[in-house]
Amino acid sequence: MNYSDISYILVMLGTVAFAVTAVLAVIPKQIDLFGAIVMGIVTAIGGGTIRDMILGVPVFWASDLNYIWVAIASSIVAFYGYQFMERKYIYSLMLYLDGIGIAMFVIQGADKALALDFASPVGPVLLGLITAIGGGITRDVLAGNTTLLLKKELYALPLTFGVVVYLVALNFFPNHADLLGTICSVLTFIIRACSIHWKLHVPQWMLIEKGKMG
Amino acid sequence: MNYSDISYILVMLGTVAFAVTAVLAVIPKQIDLFGAIVMGIVTAIGGGTIRDMILGVPVFWASDLNYIWVAIASSIVAFYGYQFMERKYIYSLMLYLDGIGIAMFVIQGADKALALDFASPVGPVLLGLITAIGGGITRDVLAGNTTLLLKKELYALPLTFGVVVYLVALNFFPNHADLLGTICSVLTFIIRACSIHWKLHVPQWMLIEKGKMG
Amino acid sequence: MNYSDISYILVMLGTVAFAVTAVLAVIPKQIDLFGAIVMGIVTAIGGGTIRDMILGVPVFWASDLNYIWVAIASSIVAFYGYQFMERKYIYSLMLYLDGIGIAMFVIQGADKALALDFASPVGPVLLGLITAIGGGITRDVLAGNTTLLLKKELYALPLTFGVVVYLVALNFFPNHADLLGTICSVLTFIIRACSIHWKLHVPQWMLIEKGKMG
Repeated sequence: MNYSDISYILVMLGTVAFAVTAVLAVIPKQIDLFGAIVMGIVTAIGGGTIRDMILGVPVFWASDLNYIWVAIASSIVAFYGYQFMERKYIYSLMLYLDGIGIAMFVIQGADKALALDFASPVGPVLLGLITAIGGGITRDVLAGNTTLLLKKELYALPLTFGVVVYLVALNFFPNHADLLGTICSVLTFIIRACSIHWKLHVPQWMLIEKGKMG
Repeated sequence: MNYSDISYILVMLGTVAFAVTAVLAVIPKQIDLFGAIVMGIVTAIGGGTIRDMILGVPVFWASDLNYIWVAIASSIVAFYGYQFMERKYIYSLMLYLDGIGIAMFVIQGADKALALDFASPVGPVLLGLITAIGGGITRDVLAGNTTLLLKKELYALPLTFGVVVYLVALNFFPNHADLLGTICSVLTFIIRACSIHWKLHVPQWMLIEKGKMG
Repeated sequence: MNYSDISYILVMLGTVAFAVTAVLAVIPKQIDLFGAIVMGIVTAIGGGTIRDMILGVPVFWASDLNYIWVAIASSIVAFYGYQFMERKYIYSLMLYLDGIGIAMFVIQGADKALALDFASPVGPVLLGLITAIGGGITRDVLAGNTTLLLKKELYALPLTFGVVVYLVALNFFPNHADLLGTICSVLTFIIRACSIHWKLHVPQWMLIEKGKMG
């Protein structure tokens, strides 16, 4: 099993987690099976689809339908097995797998922008973030939920940090993209995992204190 | 009047119904004429526009502005004539025309994906569904309404059934696309019409019983 | 300083205003710095990005990252300086700058559609409007706010008027696009400025009277 095999397996695990957490997020809304599958698919492939539409390239899942099949299967399992999925340890597992997913997708999205020489250095950062969180945001909009942009959970910041570190490092060591990508994905995941475990919030200087508000 | 003439007339009637039902859906929100026209256009052409953007082809209405003119005219008539439009029989007529519209658009969208050899067999199903319901979902998001994904009405399921039957049948009789498309559109419309008439809901096994919820 | 320099400066001032008013609009939602920057960027470049995706051309900011840098910088300043920005005169200034922005973007968007010979005459009007208000609508959807389509403020109508006048005039004087564009931008801005100053609403005949509602 080589580097790209492992990478593929992790991306698919991330896809499973995206779909499962999506379905669990909309089940309280009394969604039916069809709606659950749509939400699962949108969350799993929405970010990469928006990225590819901005880049003007064919959408990534058109050439590898496994993304869709995995999202559909995961959504069905999560829908009928939600009582099992909502158990504390299973749900935690899904949160961490989601963390692996976003940590890989943010670097993957940046790499795709870099490969197309798209609007460096801002383009890779933006498209990496869109790849990682675009699907989840679209799901929240469709479900009428508050998007993560309005939550103080430490979710998007570790991604931004990871992808910026990746681009800076790549500038110094342009021949080690794979290694640097792996390191930065792991780094991103570790920060996200810490923020799940200790329920970390966005640092205070990035918030406006309530007392100060007019 | 040949096959494609009839098909074109039905698609335009569907466009009328999309725009009219859109305006009637947002009038309770005290929308003005401009907003009503935007909602009418978005609902009428939104699904096909998203489909074409995913396919990476020119948007369909760029080469046939009748779609836009019909949507604008229908929106204006619906806006000023909403009291007439809301009458029970007129509104029912619009619901059935909307049913014709979605039944035609779902097959049309699948056909466009097939013609471009896009991600078969999942691509045609997804893009058919996006063509049929993407505009309505976008309208609901813009209007702050609950999208149909969260409603238990039998709306998207007949479409999914129709387009899957179409693709399976096409696999066996690849030379009869027109005939099969017509049959499956009619089939889809009949199921949808039944669900309007008898107010059918999504079957029980596709729902999670309230009693069982954690 | 020639015509295109002035035009560029005004467009950048409009970008500043888009980002600042976006951040001020979401601060009551207790957003953090990351969310504020995302909202600022989305509002500043969202409309033009949707336009370019519909046109099937590379997104405009890929070849001029100043749009993004200006949006990011303005968002940060607005976030930490919101108490200053919310002062009556500063906020008014931002509203008028926003008015300059939408007045320029609506003509710019129409020009881009015209240059590509896209679906004239409806295409340039629609894409001009999308360029001007698409970012603000996307921001409102992401923030869970009511979009401007459901407000009675005179915001989108002056734009529609300006871009239609522009296209009609261009039909008669096809060799004076720059001059006509400037005149129509100024005209649009003046109407918008009046509507800010006198808090004008959409005219009565474009509304449905509450008393008449069923």
